[in-house]
Amino acid sequence: MKLHSIWEPYPELATELGEVTKLIEGSIQMRNKEVETVLKDVFNKGGKMLRPAYTLLFSTFGSEHDAKRAQAVAASIELLHTATLIHDDIIDDSPKRRGQETIQSRYGKNAAVYAGDYLFTVSFRLLAQYAKSNQQFEINTKGMERILMGELDQMRLYHHTDMTIRQYLTQISGKTAQLFALSCYAGALEGGLTEKRARIAYHIGSHMGMAFQILDDILDYTISSEEFGKPVLEDVRQGIYTAPLIFAMRKNRRALLPLLEKKEQMTEEEAKKVRQLVIESDGIIEAKRLAEKYTEKSLKKILSLPDTKEKEIIYQLTKQLLSRKS
Amino acid sequence: MKLHSIWEPYPELATELGEVTKLIEGSIQMRNKEVETVLKDVFNKGGKMLRPAYTLLFSTFGSEHDAKRAQAVAASIELLHTATLIHDDIIDDSPKRRGQETIQSRYGKNAAVYAGDYLFTVSFRLLAQYAKSNQQFEINTKGMERILMGELDQMRLYHHTDMTIRQYLTQISGKTAQLFALSCYAGALEGGLTEKRARIAYHIGSHMGMAFQILDDILDYTISSEEFGKPVLEDVRQGIYTAPLIFAMRKNRRALLPLLEKKEQMTEEEAKKVRQLVIESDGIIEAKRLAEKYTEKSLKKILSLPDTKEKEIIYQLTKQLLSRKS
Repeated sequence: MKLHSIWEPYPELATELGEVTKLIEGSIQMRNKEVETVLKDVFNKGGKMLRPAYTLLFSTFGSEHDAKRAQAVAASIELLHTATLIHDDIIDDSPKRRGQETIQSRYGKNAAVYAGDYLFTVSFRLLAQYAKSNQQFEINTKGMERILMGELDQMRLYHHTDMTIRQYLTQISGKTAQLFALSCYAGALEGGLTEKRARIAYHIGSHMGMAFQILDDILDYTISSEEFGKPVLEDVRQGIYTAPLIFAMRKNRRALLPLLEKKEQMTEEEAKKVRQLVIESDGIIEAKRLAEKYTEKSLKKILSLPDTKEKEIIYQLTKQLLSRKS
Repeated sequence: MKLHSIWEPYPELATELGEVTKLIEGSIQMRNKEVETVLKDVFNKGGKMLRPAYTLLFSTFGSEHDAKRAQAVAASIELLHTATLIHDDIIDDSPKRRGQETIQSRYGKNAAVYAGDYLFTVSFRLLAQYAKSNQQFEINTKGMERILMGELDQMRLYHHTDMTIRQYLTQISGKTAQLFALSCYAGALEGGLTEKRARIAYHIGSHMGMAFQILDDILDYTISSEEFGKPVLEDVRQGIYTAPLIFAMRKNRRALLPLLEKKEQMTEEEAKKVRQLVIESDGIIEAKRLAEKYTEKSLKKILSLPDTKEKEIIYQLTKQLLSRKS
């Protein structure tokens, strides 16, 4: 298992995340060994494991902290996350994810639909086996429902050139912030915090997730397409409009609108023109300002936590994640 | 709510199934009202509700029968079933299901992926809210895992002209029998039966599901394409080979093989030829014989249940379902 370098400064946490990965891998047992291997690979060569890390960290504040149980809840969250990614790839028709060929590109949409469903199910089974109460289920399932509603909402807003920042925020709240919020909240509750105190964890995760997604959306406009591995503003072509563009539209709608109306027919030249217009109209600057507001809210709430070494890690980690070069 | 005429002889059960439908509808609460309406419609104009009926019936044998809880478990099962149907329609690219336009044909694959995911999640949330223990979750999630593994297995066997009856049985066990088995087992456990006694319910459902699916597969060969609303042997074109064909291949492989090898390019004329060959080679007769074995096993086990009015209903219902004209 290759853990992401982000965890090097935190060896204890890294060890625990290793346990979470083992638990996930041990839970994936299929007759179809080919698909089993692919699914295990997704986790092995996988992502940063940010969400389970927050779950583990927040599980330490209560009086009932139990490492095994917290790891199971963390594994369950990462499984949910990965299930949604596999299903997202079907929808986006993505050939690659994290540098690996996607399941749907390798085995077809069929396999990807069922593989995602399978991971959803494993996620809930892990909770059934380890979590201390039905409450943990209710939280995870309700959180998941909100995330899926966010995805369904997003579809209504494709190619919506009148999209407001408020609509954008609702969208990324469902798409990204909810799962970060859930990660923190589920950890806090499993560790034994009262619901009221666990709410603080929820808000820390939610604000963090909002900032994280806005920064991610800014990257589409600042990173070169070679680094990114996909065509310039592919998402814009598909009708997904994010903060930089929405802010830029306020200032220079006249120049941007005819380009956006080309939709999927937008050429590489035109996409570059959109990017340039967004930068010139301060779309990036304003989006960064928006992200900073959420970063500050999150960090401020983190400072209100009891002084433990985990609090310190949460603070450092959040600061590091939200000061990505962009 | 329009309940299927199959329930007319059982007014109490019909009333309870009405409650299950209400519970399902009440659980589907989305911001996207358009998708919400479509999802509710799936249940409203929906299927026969066979699976939840078995759950309700088997929940009455234990000492802890609680109507509300049993209805929640039944609703959870029907939600799982519908989620898999919505995802199946994506894979088959089906334009219609139960005479209604499918979600994917009306709103695209995106909506169908997330709508199915949403129903999965609602299913588990209902269990979290109503079921009496984590055990119910473990059962439902493990059952679901087996079903999804069955679906993933099936894909390996597309266009597999050497397919054996044993492979076919494993396939339909995962695809159909598992969910019937789960419906009976989950009901029995929720009602308070011991795991050992609930196992009997499991086997009744499993045998019943096997017979049900074999009879369904026979219909592809006996019903006219007009009645069916889809081209002759569409499934065979797509490489799904079922009992009648597998039996016929034993007797007349030489004539059938070149036709099957045309795969998706098989013409309507050629499909009719396949159907004729299957009938002439006793494929239907042998498949019926196979179904009867499972029907008998199921009915025999039902007769071993304690004498209650629910036992009588289970017997009548199963007999009726498994003597479909074909």
